[in-house]
Amino acid sequence: MDFSSFVTSLTTSFVIFLVLMLLYVWLSRRPGNNVVYYPNRILKGLEPWEGPKSRNPFAWIGEAVSSTEADVISMSGVDTAVYFVFLSSVLAILVLSGLVLLPVLLPVAATEKMKSNINSTSSGNFSNLDKLSMGNIPNRSPRLWAYLIGTYWVTFVTFYILWKGYKHVSDLRARALMSPEVKPEQFAALVRDIPQDPEGRTRKEQVDSYFKTIHSETFYRSMVVTDNKQANKIWEELEQYRKKLAHAEAIFTASKTAGKPEGTRPTNKLGFLGLVGKKVDTIDYCNEKINELIPKLESEQKTTVTEKQQAAAIVFFNSRLAAASAAQAVHAQMPDSWTVTEAPEPRQLLWSNLAIKYYERKIRQSIVYVFVALVIFFYMIPIGFISAFTTLENLKKLLPFLKSIINIVQIKTILEAYLPQIALLVFLALLPKFLMMLSKAEGIPSEAHAVRATSGKYFYFTVLNVFIGVTVGGTLFSTFKTIEKQPNKAVSILGTGLPANATFFLTFVALKFFVGYGLELSRLVPLIIFHLKRKYICKTEAELKEAWAPGDFGYGTRVPNDMLIITIVLCYSVIAPIIIPFGVVYFGLGWLILRNQAIKVYVPSYESYGRMWPHMHSRILASLVVYQITMLGYFVLKEFVYTILLIPLPIFSIFFAYVCSGKFYRSFSSTPLEVACREVKEIPNMESIFRAFVPACLRSEKFDDGDQFEDALGQFSRTGSLSI
Amino acid sequence: MDFSSFVTSLTTSFVIFLVLMLLYVWLSRRPGNNVVYYPNRILKGLEPWEGPKSRNPFAWIGEAVSSTEADVISMSGVDTAVYFVFLSSVLAILVLSGLVLLPVLLPVAATEKMKSNINSTSSGNFSNLDKLSMGNIPNRSPRLWAYLIGTYWVTFVTFYILWKGYKHVSDLRARALMSPEVKPEQFAALVRDIPQDPEGRTRKEQVDSYFKTIHSETFYRSMVVTDNKQANKIWEELEQYRKKLAHAEAIFTASKTAGKPEGTRPTNKLGFLGLVGKKVDTIDYCNEKINELIPKLESEQKTTVTEKQQAAAIVFFNSRLAAASAAQAVHAQMPDSWTVTEAPEPRQLLWSNLAIKYYERKIRQSIVYVFVALVIFFYMIPIGFISAFTTLENLKKLLPFLKSIINIVQIKTILEAYLPQIALLVFLALLPKFLMMLSKAEGIPSEAHAVRATSGKYFYFTVLNVFIGVTVGGTLFSTFKTIEKQPNKAVSILGTGLPANATFFLTFVALKFFVGYGLELSRLVPLIIFHLKRKYICKTEAELKEAWAPGDFGYGTRVPNDMLIITIVLCYSVIAPIIIPFGVVYFGLGWLILRNQAIKVYVPSYESYGRMWPHMHSRILASLVVYQITMLGYFVLKEFVYTILLIPLPIFSIFFAYVCSGKFYRSFSSTPLEVACREVKEIPNMESIFRAFVPACLRSEKFDDGDQFEDALGQFSRTGSLSI
Repeated sequence: MDFSSFVTSLTTSFVIFLVLMLLYVWLSRRPGNNVVYYPNRILKGLEPWEGPKSRNPFAWIGEAVSSTEADVISMSGVDTAVYFVFLSSVLAILVLSGLVLLPVLLPVAATEKMKSNINSTSSGNFSNLDKLSMGNIPNRSPRLWAYLIGTYWVTFVTFYILWKGYKHVSDLRARALMSPEVKPEQFAALVRDIPQDPEGRTRKEQVDSYFKTIHSETFYRSMVVTDNKQANKIWEELEQYRKKLAHAEAIFTASKTAGKPEGTRPTNKLGFLGLVGKKVDTIDYCNEKINELIPKLESEQKTTVTEKQQAAAIVFFNSRLAAASAAQAVHAQMPDSWTVTEAPEPRQLLWSNLAIKYYERKIRQSIVYVFVALVIFFYMIPIGFISAFTTLENLKKLLPFLKSIINIVQIKTILEAYLPQIALLVFLALLPKFLMMLSKAEGIPSEAHAVRATSGKYFYFTVLNVFIGVTVGGTLFSTFKTIEKQPNKAVSILGTGLPANATFFLTFVALKFFVGYGLELSRLVPLIIFHLKRKYICKTEAELKEAWAPGDFGYGTRVPNDMLIITIVLCYSVIAPIIIPFGVVYFGLGWLILRNQAIKVYVPSYESYGRMWPHMHSRILASLVVYQITMLGYFVLKEFVYTILLIPLPIFSIFFAYVCSGKFYRSFSSTPLEVACREVKEIPNMESIFRAFVPACLRSEKFDDGDQFEDALGQFSRTGSLSI
Repeated sequence: MDFSSFVTSLTTSFVIFLVLMLLYVWLSRRPGNNVVYYPNRILKGLEPWEGPKSRNPFAWIGEAVSSTEADVISMSGVDTAVYFVFLSSVLAILVLSGLVLLPVLLPVAATEKMKSNINSTSSGNFSNLDKLSMGNIPNRSPRLWAYLIGTYWVTFVTFYILWKGYKHVSDLRARALMSPEVKPEQFAALVRDIPQDPEGRTRKEQVDSYFKTIHSETFYRSMVVTDNKQANKIWEELEQYRKKLAHAEAIFTASKTAGKPEGTRPTNKLGFLGLVGKKVDTIDYCNEKINELIPKLESEQKTTVTEKQQAAAIVFFNSRLAAASAAQAVHAQMPDSWTVTEAPEPRQLLWSNLAIKYYERKIRQSIVYVFVALVIFFYMIPIGFISAFTTLENLKKLLPFLKSIINIVQIKTILEAYLPQIALLVFLALLPKFLMMLSKAEGIPSEAHAVRATSGKYFYFTVLNVFIGVTVGGTLFSTFKTIEKQPNKAVSILGTGLPANATFFLTFVALKFFVGYGLELSRLVPLIIFHLKRKYICKTEAELKEAWAPGDFGYGTRVPNDMLIITIVLCYSVIAPIIIPFGVVYFGLGWLILRNQAIKVYVPSYESYGRMWPHMHSRILASLVVYQITMLGYFVLKEFVYTILLIPLPIFSIFFAYVCSGKFYRSFSSTPLEVACREVKEIPNMESIFRAFVPACLRSEKFDDGDQFEDALGQFSRTGSLSI
C-alpha cells in the first residue's frame, strides 16, 4: 500500500465518520427517535435529556465528558464502569507511552540516512511512513539504544497504570457489594454436584437436612433445580399465543373506524407459515389455545417441581455474610460433591447447565478447549491468505465483470485501501456467536461467566490469527518472490516486513474507529429496523417496546476487539511509533461515544460487579508479553548486541501478573467477609428473595394458586401466596 | 561391577542385617533397655510388651503384622498411619507390577541371543545380570512390544493404587478431624498480615473489633502474636539454672553416704567452661540466680505482651465449625491483608515466623527457591564424579598407603561393592538440616508445613542429582574412552549404559534396606548413647528421661529417601525387572520394621492429620513421569517404531494428577464444613483452649500471678488465673 492510498483511506474514514455524527445530531433531536437514542433513560423513567429542548447540537459530547463514574454506575451498572476503567487505562498507557516515544523515536528514525541495501531488493515498496519506523535504522546502529529504552518505558508505564486500575476496580467492586440495597443473589449460594442420597429422600429433603445441619442458624430455605425443558416449552407457547391475541385485538380495535363501528375480526390460516390450511378467527382461536394451555402448564409445573428435581440447588441464607461465608467453604469431605459457590443474579442463571455434574463439566471443558485450539490453529492458514489475496489484482482475475468499476481511479483507490480490512472484519464477525455457544456447552452456570469465557477464546483467536497470521502471512507472501531468488535473505526480509505491515494495521485501526464508532453513535441500523417494525408490524405497546429494546453492551466481543487493537498498537508502539496517535484516537473516541451509549442507550442484561476486570488485566499483560517477545525477535534481527537486556522484561511481566493476582484476585473470585458484613438498609424480605429465583415458566398464573409451588418448591409453612 | 562383587555385596548386607536383628532380639529383652526399645509405650503408660515375660524372640514380627491401622493411629497419630498407607501403596504397586513383568520380561530377555555388536566395544564388562535386562534385546526387535506393554501396565497399576490410597487417606483424615475429642487447634484460626491500624488502637483492640464485627456470634477472643525473643532468652536461662540446681541437689543427696551423713556440697567455677574463675557453691549459686531471674522474666513478660505486639494473631472461636469456616474465607477486601488460615497445633507453631508479612514471605520464598535450584544444579557435577571416581583404582592412586589392605581379595571385593554407595549415603546425610533451615526461612508458620517443604526440596535434590546424575555421569565417564575414539557411537553407548547402571542401583537399594533397616531396628546408636549418659551424666529423673527421649519419625528425610528408591525401581522396572524384588523387599522390610518402631519407639512431635499425603501422591506421580520419559528415551535409542505409543503416558499422568487434585485436594488444604460440624464430646473449655496457645516463656510462674497476662493477652474479664 502506498502513501496516497493510506491518506485516501484516512480521509474517507473521517468523512464517513463526520457524516454519521451529523446524522446522529440531526436524528437524535427528533422526538420520534427518542426510544432509539435514549432507551436507557426512558426505561429508567427519565426525560430523554435534561435542560432546554432546543439545545446545542454537540451537547452530547459535554454530557459524556462531564458524566462521573457514579452516573455510569447508576445508569448502567458496575460492569460498564469497569469497562470505562479499562478504556481509560489503555488510553493512559498509550498517552504516557506516546508522550515519550513520539518526540524521541520519530526524529531518531527520520534523521537516519538509510543505506539502500534493503530498498534494492524490494524496489520502491518503501513508503514515506516507513521512513519514520525502526525499519529505517540500519543493523547494529547505536541509535537502537533509544528503541531499547522505549521498550522498557512502555512496559513500566503499563505496569503502573494496570496496578492503579486494579486497585480502583477492586474498590468499585467492594463499594457495590457493600451497598445497603437488598440484592437477592447476595443472600443465596449455588449448590452443585449433590450426590445420590443414600437414604432415599427427595432431593429437597436431602438438601434441607444437609444445610440445616451445617448452617443451623443462618439457613433459610432451598430451591432444588428442576428440569424445566417441558414446562418452558409450554410456557413459551402460551406467551406466544398471548402476544398474538394482543396483536389481533389491537388490529380489531383499529378496524373499528367511524364508518364501520363493528370492525373486522382478524383471521389467520393454521397451516404452514399461515399460508395454507383452515381459516380461523384469530382472537377466538388464541383464547381457546390459551385456555387449553393454562391447565397444561399448571400440571406440568406440578410434575416438574415434584418429579424433575435434579442434583443442584439454590440455597438461601438469612444474611449476606452467611451466604458469602458458605460460598467460600468446602462443604463435603470429597470436594467433588456439594460444590457451593456464589449464586449469580437470577436473570443470568443458565438454568439448564446447573445440574451438570463435576466430571461431566471437566470433560466438556476439555473437549471445548481442544476444539477451540484446533479452530484457532486451522483458521490461521486461511487468514494468512486473506490478507495476501484480497488485492485488486486478484479480485480482477476472479471477478472479471468488476473490471470496469475498479478501473475508475477513485473507486480503485478506496477499494485498494479497504478491501483487506473489510474482508478481515466480516470474517471476524462470524465467530463470536459460535464461541458463545461453545462456552455455554462447557457447563458454565451464569451468563456473565459464559461471556468471560467467550471473550477469552475470542481474544486468543484474534491475537493469534489476525495479528500473528497477518504479520507473518502477509510478510511471507509479499516477499515470496524475493525469497525464491535469494532464500538466504528470508530472515532480513522478515525483519523489514514487520514495520512495513504497520500501514496495514494503521488503516485497520482507522477503519475501526471512524466507521465502527460512527455507526455505533448514529445507530442507523437499529433506527431503520425500529421504524420499519413500527410501521408494518407493531400493533401493541409491548410489541413497540420490544422493537426498540436496545440490548446490552456486548462485552463478549467488544473487549477482545479492543484487545486486538491494544495488541497491535503495543507491538508497533516502538517499531513504528506513529501508530500511537491512532490508538489514542481509537480509545479516546471509543470512550466518548460509548460513554454516551452507556448513559443513554444500552441496558445491561446482567451485573457481575466487575468480575470482567481480572480477565482484562491479564489479557493486557498477555499483549504486553507478545509485544516484549516481538521486540526481542526484532532486535535480534537488527543484530543489536544489547538485545539481551530485553530478556528480563517478559519475566517481569509474569512476576507482575503473579503479584497482582496475589494481591487482588481472591476478592474478585469471592466476596470478602469484611465487605459482606455491612448492614443492609432494611430487614430483607426473604420470601421475595426466594421468589426472585423462581424461573418464569414455573411461576404461578393465578395469585391464589401459588400454594402448590410454594409447598413443592419450599416445603415450608405457607407465609404468603406466590405472585408473578 | 561384575557379578561376583554383586553377590558379595548382597551376602554381606544380608549377614549384617541378620546380626543386627539378632542383636535387637537379645538387647530388647533386657529390662534395662526397655526405655530404648519401648519408649512410646512407656510414655503412654503401657507395659513394654503384653503377654508373658519370656516370650518368643520373634514376637515383634507378629506384633507388627497384626497391628491394625487403628493401633497405629492411637499409638502414633494419623501422620504415621498415612506414612504406612504410603509404604503399602508403593509395595502394592511393585508387587502388582512384578507379578506381570517378572514372568514375562525376564524370559523374553534371557532367551534372546544378543549379537555381539556392542559387546565388542565394551569388552567383557557385560555381567550376567545385564543379560536379563532390556539392554540385551537388539534394536527394532519385535520383542520390544513386551516391554512397551509392560510400561503401560506399570503406569495403570500406579494410577489404580494411588487413587485407592488417596481415597483411603481422605477418609482417615476426615475421621480424625471428626473425632469428638476437643483439640485446641480446631477452635482457632491463624491471622497474619494485619494492616496498620488507621485509628491508632493497639493491635489487640484492632483484632478484637475486626473479628467481633464479622463473626459477632462465634468469636471468642484473640491472642496477639508478640516478639518473644527476649522473654524466651531469659526463660531458657532460668530453665537451665533449674536443671543445674536439680542436678547439684541430686549429687549432694548421693554424697550423703552412711560414712559422711552431712555430704559434700557440689561446687563449680564461674569462668570459661567451668574451668577457671571464682569457685562457688553450686546449689546456693543456682538458687540465687533463679531468684534473680524470676522477677526479670516477669517484667519482661509484661513488656512483651503489652509493648511487643506484632501484626499477627491467633483468633479463637466457640465452635469447630466457625473456626473451619472462618479459615476458608477471604476476610479483607485486599486479600494481602488479614490472611486467615487454619491454626496449626500449638506445639508446632513457628512463633517467630508468624509476624512475617505477605510480601516479605513471597520474597523470601522466591529467594529460597532460586537458591535451592542453584544448589541442586551445582551439586549435580560433583555427584556425577563421585560415582565415577570412587573406584578402587582411583583410591589406590590417591592414597597409595592403602594398597596393601586393598590387595587382600575379600576386602577388595567388599570395598569394590560398597565404596560408591557409601560415598553417596554420606553425602546425602549432610543435606536435610540445611534444607530444613532454608524452608523455615521462607516464613512458614508451622513445623509440619516446614517438614513438607523440606521433603519437597530434598526429593527434587535426590531425584535430580542422585538418579539422573549417577546414570548420566556414570555412563558418560565409563564410556568416555570409547567416545573419544568413535564419537558418533555416543548415543548407542548411552543406551546400553542405562541398564548397565542397574547393578549400581541394585547394590544401593540392597545396602539401604539391609544395613539401614538393620540399624533402625537394633537402635544401636541410641542404645550406646543412652547407657553412656546414664552412667556418666544423668543424676535426676528428668535428665534420664531426656536421655532416652526417642524423637520422632523424621518424615522430612525419610519420605524423600523412600521416593528416591521408588524412582529408581520404577525407572528400572521395565528395563531391568530384576530390580522389582529388591524394591519389594525394601518396602516390605521397611513396613515391618517401621511398624515396630511406630508402635513402640518413636513419639510424633506434631500431628497434621495426613496433610503429607498430597505431597507423597504427587511425588510418586512425578517419579512415574520420570519413568515414562526415561522409557520414551530408551525406546527411541532402541529405534523401535512404535515408541510413539508411549507419548500419551505422561499426558495421562498429568491428567490423573489434575483429576485427583480436583477430587481430593481441597479437603486436605482445609477442613470441610461437613467434617467440622460434628459435635464434640463435651462443652469445650475455651479458657484451656486459649491457654494451650500461650508460649512457654510467657506462662506465669506463680498460680495467682496470672492476672497480668490474662489481662494483657486476653483483655477479658477475669475468669480464672493462668496456670502453667
